[in-house]
Amino acid sequence: MAKLPLGRNVRGRNDETAAENRRRFAEARLCAVNLLSSPGSGKTSLLERTAERMKDRWRILVIDGDVETERDAQRLRAAGLEAIQIQTHGACHLNAMMIAEQVATVDPAAFDLLLIENIGNLVCPSNYDLGESSRVVVASTTEGDDKPIKYPEAYHTADLCVLNKVDLLPYLPFDVAAFEAGVRRVKADMPVLHTSCTTGAGLEAWCAWLDGQVRATRGEPGKS
Amino acid sequence: MAKLPLGRNVRGRNDETAAENRRRFAEARLCAVNLLSSPGSGKTSLLERTAERMKDRWRILVIDGDVETERDAQRLRAAGLEAIQIQTHGACHLNAMMIAEQVATVDPAAFDLLLIENIGNLVCPSNYDLGESSRVVVASTTEGDDKPIKYPEAYHTADLCVLNKVDLLPYLPFDVAAFEAGVRRVKADMPVLHTSCTTGAGLEAWCAWLDGQVRATRGEPGKS
Repeated sequence: MAKLPLGRNVRGRNDETAAENRRRFAEARLCAVNLLSSPGSGKTSLLERTAERMKDRWRILVIDGDVETERDAQRLRAAGLEAIQIQTHGACHLNAMMIAEQVATVDPAAFDLLLIENIGNLVCPSNYDLGESSRVVVASTTEGDDKPIKYPEAYHTADLCVLNKVDLLPYLPFDVAAFEAGVRRVKADMPVLHTSCTTGAGLEAWCAWLDGQVRATRGEPGKS
Repeated sequence: MAKLPLGRNVRGRNDETAAENRRRFAEARLCAVNLLSSPGSGKTSLLERTAERMKDRWRILVIDGDVETERDAQRLRAAGLEAIQIQTHGACHLNAMMIAEQVATVDPAAFDLLLIENIGNLVCPSNYDLGESSRVVVASTTEGDDKPIKYPEAYHTADLCVLNKVDLLPYLPFDVAAFEAGVRRVKADMPVLHTSCTTGAGLEAWCAWLDGQVRATRGEPGKS
């Protein structure tokens, strides 16, 4: 079965704009992280917990993508973050032009960390570079342990895998070793963090990883 | 934000082929059901449980869509069903041409029920008519109760909503009333069935619904 061709114009324009976004982020020393996942993996909850732990340390902006509703940005504003909602009204991924348009409404140098919560979709967003510094794929234990090999592109293009909802493991037929073997098969050296937004497990490690990304962007040493 | 335009040629060709599929299914008195959901909602497990209950009553064919791997078709063959795997290698939805191509390899009149397991994606598959008799959106309790209003197209175009993994409700912050209110907001008259493939809850009602679909296609009265 042939891969659905993306028009050269669409992809070319996206990649040019992504390169421009990346240049602007670097100039502003803004660390941009693109979060990909299935619907309902817990990205917004993860960012709420991240806000609690990091909002006094770094100046954080969220760009939140959804097909419909402003719910996620509202939740993140309630958590104390500055948040912009993009509603795509049917479109299945964020693209670099959408990000450029929103970044133009703020001063990028006024922030240290840009968290981009992509549309809940494990297929299409992986094909679109947004100009991010790093990409995170968020899996949840409830999705089953075979997702890395069934949706390899999202895993292959990510720099970090977060396995969320580990508090539910006792109630699920989820094989952590099989999941991690699948991740390694798609991307041999990808780190996997285990988190639960309910119990707080793994959130320190997640925030330490983010902290390292921000410091690297700013040219600072790894530890405060 | 503008809706991503689908080329008129792509959609036109899909809709023509879907109409042709629908004509062939009607001629063969084959009931075709298209199942849509997020990755990991439990569609394959639901079909495994369906096989146990219905494979001696009706002749069932499964067409299984995945980005990569043949795992799901293998699971369904092990459950005693005839199953064809389509691997899209990156494409985010099944289209009517893919279905036509596979249906041409079998005798449609040799089956009573065609179950099409779409790619795990709550956005793109909702835009593609496959020629199905009815469409089912499978939600899982672990995705959160706000998905109907965040991904309205999948819910709006469905004839039935199955809320799966209800056995996990005690461990989740999932509000069933809010979920069902969201479903009604998107499609006022859509029935919602609650199922668990772990405990078996709701599977009789699901199979009764499927049974009604098959009988309606065959022009038989509702109950055996």
